[in-house]
Amino acid sequence: MTKQAAVEALQEFRSRIDAVDRSILLLLNERTRIVEEIGRVKQKAQMPIYEPKREDQVFDNVTRHNTGPLSTGAVRRIFERVIDEMRGVQRAQMEAKDGGSSC
Amino acid sequence: MTKQAAVEALQEFRSRIDAVDRSILLLLNERTRIVEEIGRVKQKAQMPIYEPKREDQVFDNVTRHNTGPLSTGAVRRIFERVIDEMRGVQRAQMEAKDGGSSC
Repeated sequence: MTKQAAVEALQEFRSRIDAVDRSILLLLNERTRIVEEIGRVKQKAQMPIYEPKREDQVFDNVTRHNTGPLSTGAVRRIFERVIDEMRGVQRAQMEAKDGGSSC
Repeated sequence: MTKQAAVEALQEFRSRIDAVDRSILLLLNERTRIVEEIGRVKQKAQMPIYEPKREDQVFDNVTRHNTGPLSTGAVRRIFERVIDEMRGVQRAQMEAKDGGSSC
């Protein structure tokens, strides 16, 4: 493979990655909006914010459905980050000192 | 809102979150496959693995297209985690000691 051909192939792959990333971004924001809805429901119903079992369900869902090439560990670490950010969103929403369930 | 109505609403929202997460998972694995392709092209063309400017482009792409409700900081932290995991994938693929460009 010539360097020129490689450069062109990389450009194409990176353009595809950028499109995938924008799709992931849309889904992350969609997820955040649902988390905000959950926060509102919990506030209205005066339900407890923190539900650790729900976080386990989130990890189960993604690791059970993972067919690779990402490893289970990688998937878990990425969703730990996602959940942590959602926790921050819900915490800000609740204006409470305790972190809310992020899922 | 009654507690029963809230419980049902939460179930519905969580079911939607689980579906969103599975879609994110599919895209993450698609991204990983493209990163593996990039690794193969670089190996064939004997090109340098590490390209820090490309990581900046990845962050620019997602933060520029972010319309919220996730903050720029949250988006950046999530994609830092994603890129870090991709770096691990490419590093394993290259069997090299230096980390590869993850994007």
